[in-house]
Amino acid sequence: MLGIDDEKFIRGKVPMTKREIRILTLANANIGVHDFVADIGAGTGSLSIEAALIATHGQVIAIERNSVAADLIMQNAENFSLSNITVVNAEAPECLKNLPRLDVALVGGTGGRIEEILNMLDLVLKVEGRIVLNFITVQSLYKCLTWFKEHSNYRYEAVQVQINRLKNLGAYDMETAINPVHIVTASMPVSNVVNIAEAKILKIQASGKVEQREALAGSPD
Amino acid sequence: MLGIDDEKFIRGKVPMTKREIRILTLANANIGVHDFVADIGAGTGSLSIEAALIATHGQVIAIERNSVAADLIMQNAENFSLSNITVVNAEAPECLKNLPRLDVALVGGTGGRIEEILNMLDLVLKVEGRIVLNFITVQSLYKCLTWFKEHSNYRYEAVQVQINRLKNLGAYDMETAINPVHIVTASMPVSNVVNIAEAKILKIQASGKVEQREALAGSPD
Amino acid sequence: MLGIDDEKFIRGKVPMTKREIRILTLANANIGVHDFVADIGAGTGSLSIEAALIATHGQVIAIERNSVAADLIMQNAENFSLSNITVVNAEAPECLKNLPRLDVALVGGTGGRIEEILNMLDLVLKVEGRIVLNFITVQSLYKCLTWFKEHSNYRYEAVQVQINRLKNLGAYDMETAINPVHIVTASMPVSNVVNIAEAKILKIQASGKVEQREALAGSPD
Amino acid sequence: MLGIDDEKFIRGKVPMTKREIRILTLANANIGVHDFVADIGAGTGSLSIEAALIATHGQVIAIERNSVAADLIMQNAENFSLSNITVVNAEAPECLKNLPRLDVALVGGTGGRIEEILNMLDLVLKVEGRIVLNFITVQSLYKCLTWFKEHSNYRYEAVQVQINRLKNLGAYDMETAINPVHIVTASMPVSNVVNIAEAKILKIQASGKVEQREALAGSPD
Repeated sequence: MLGIDDEKFIRGKVPMTKREIRILTLANANIGVHDFVADIGAGTGSLSIEAALIATHGQVIAIERNSVAADLIMQNAENFSLSNITVVNAEAPECLKNLPRLDVALVGGTGGRIEEILNMLDLVLKVEGRIVLNFITVQSLYKCLTWFKEHSNYRYEAVQVQINRLKNLGAYDMETAINPVHIVTASMPVSNVVNIAEAKILKIQASGKVEQREALAGSPD
Repeated sequence: MLGIDDEKFIRGKVPMTKREIRILTLANANIGVHDFVADIGAGTGSLSIEAALIATHGQVIAIERNSVAADLIMQNAENFSLSNITVVNAEAPECLKNLPRLDVALVGGTGGRIEEILNMLDLVLKVEGRIVLNFITVQSLYKCLTWFKEHSNYRYEAVQVQINRLKNLGAYDMETAINPVHIVTASMPVSNVVNIAEAKILKIQASGKVEQREALAGSPD
Repeated sequence: MLGIDDEKFIRGKVPMTKREIRILTLANANIGVHDFVADIGAGTGSLSIEAALIATHGQVIAIERNSVAADLIMQNAENFSLSNITVVNAEAPECLKNLPRLDVALVGGTGGRIEEILNMLDLVLKVEGRIVLNFITVQSLYKCLTWFKEHSNYRYEAVQVQINRLKNLGAYDMETAINPVHIVTASMPVSNVVNIAEAKILKIQASGKVEQREALAGSPD
Repeated sequence: MLGIDDEKFIRGKVPMTKREIRILTLANANIGVHDFVADIGAGTGSLSIEAALIATHGQVIAIERNSVAADLIMQNAENFSLSNITVVNAEAPECLKNLPRLDVALVGGTGGRIEEILNMLDLVLKVEGRIVLNFITVQSLYKCLTWFKEHSNYRYEAVQVQINRLKNLGAYDMETAINPVHIVTASMPVSNVVNIAEAKILKIQASGKVEQREALAGSPD
């Protein structure tokens, strides 16, 4: 099932999504056996590999601009004997353009282009499709939340996950921290299919109005 | 898949294992389609229900001493149209005695009897069986870790999980904390089957010695 | 010293800065005996009161737009027999305009006007003055960080603080979470006094350039 | 005031109490200008140095069994030009025996001997004296809580502190975790002076009874 141990992956110096974050990310992604999945900013490919083990009759596209990391994904896919992973050594979102429509998009890294990636996913994601994003910086998290607030046909949920692992030291167990990650999950509900077009028209006309309303609404800080 | 929304369960005033903790607990439990699972201290039954949705050809025994909570589990099982859950309104570990051998034990509540529960699970768990325990107090966590240190044929891992949910307040998202939970996961490796008997003999003879060694080993605090 | 117990303050339904957050906020504020301090978005006044107990020969201005909360601050100040607190029932930042220059600004609430508040503090804060801000939302934190990145004469540091209190339940202690808070601390170093004027000129001319450089720098996400 | 930056201390490879933990520990210790303070398991001496800066007319005894660490404390004390720190390169609790009575005991490291240290502090601490302990392992925390539960004349409070520091990466700020620490704070209230003797007599007679009551009380796990 979910949750391959971290040490089962070849990592090199490429940062890796830790096991607990992977589990929660994949649970939110709700990948089906036949799903077509993109893993954007795939890093070592740990998420791609777990996704490919679920989508056994589907396909996972691992997108990674760093060529050293792209090689690692290939090696990891081989070690897990997976033939349903395609590694794309290119930059998102351009490379997403010519792909079939996605059931699921996992976003582990954005290269500072979160809005562009979300704009593209908005075009290539199927209805009922899920987007699950991981963030380690305040800025990318903020920009993602802002995008979803401006695209109100999407519903989103977000959590911060902080894991401390108990390190076994003989008679003692020491709490050791893993860097926290924010997971943002969004999906486009069926009931909103008609609304999407309207919402987009509305957005073009009324973006100024929306901001004004938010400013008046006040803040809890 | 994993991770039913918290509000899908009828809760009353019974404390419930929150979604993210459930996901990580069940990922560690690695439940199979045909597995026989016990959920000890089942509370609202949220873990039992997710387990039963995985073990579709297996069986889940939800053990809960509180009769109000036991009723809730029944209602929740009905709402999810599950026929592979049996609710046992009794106290663990006695009621575990006459059950078939378990593939998986989930322990959400111990009623202060963690050592007795682990002693019983040691007898009724299959080889390669998994135990996944959730703790909200320092004391029960400590006693559990101590038990596993004294039963060295088991390998255990433990993490503390702290989740902050982003509460949507119009233009703002506020970080709101959920109480942290420790998840301890253990399994009996196949390779240790022969060692188990030896380890038990050793324990009887040498328990004094073991404690002495630990005291000499020093502490990281 | 620092760290009055939470229950020593009259709270009503007004949210209060919790003891541990107060301690860390005040430690970063480094208030002196003669300091002139503003507490913006003072809430129940818990920070104002601790500040006034340190600045015994100074003065604390507690600014709070909510009149119910403003009354609470008055009551709390009376209960602690403090005569060096002035409550201003008005909205920041306008009310800061006619005050003497500040040694320290504590910002507990911004009413969604963080940039305006920082712009005003930039005018009314003494050289070497400290600003310590608390945030409970992603958006206000982001806007604050952005402001400091755009005003590079300020050095800032930021931490997220998550406190779990052990609730005593007889033989057990249960970990209970308090909502996490981000604390941002900034000060204007003496060595930058000359640079400030230059930096401001630079900002006017080169704001486009600065943004461009940041965009090229890439992102760790 | 409180909260010297971590990099101001010479550390070598000795683990150091991080700034935020130091601030909260010292706030709870409530050290006075004339106080006599022991810092047990002083490590790099960061807590001793901050304590000595407060107890300007008092004295701080830094106890550290590791001679490399003891040397570091000396160097750090010199760097801060402090003459009110005495470094004792010996093991607690034996070395506490011949000291004058303590106003405050800070316990950063216990070498696995937490109960013995608390037993000794029980003898050498002044009435109204404070004990503030830091724990990084579940086991030492548990043993400390157990000791205080068995010595009911002491009141204790405990928190877990988890700090994430925002690491500045140009246009981004990345949340980086520091290992969590439990802080336990206890003091002997004046009103309990008479009760102490009674409590001790009671303990000798009734320790079996006390355990029995706790076992019956049940558990929240």
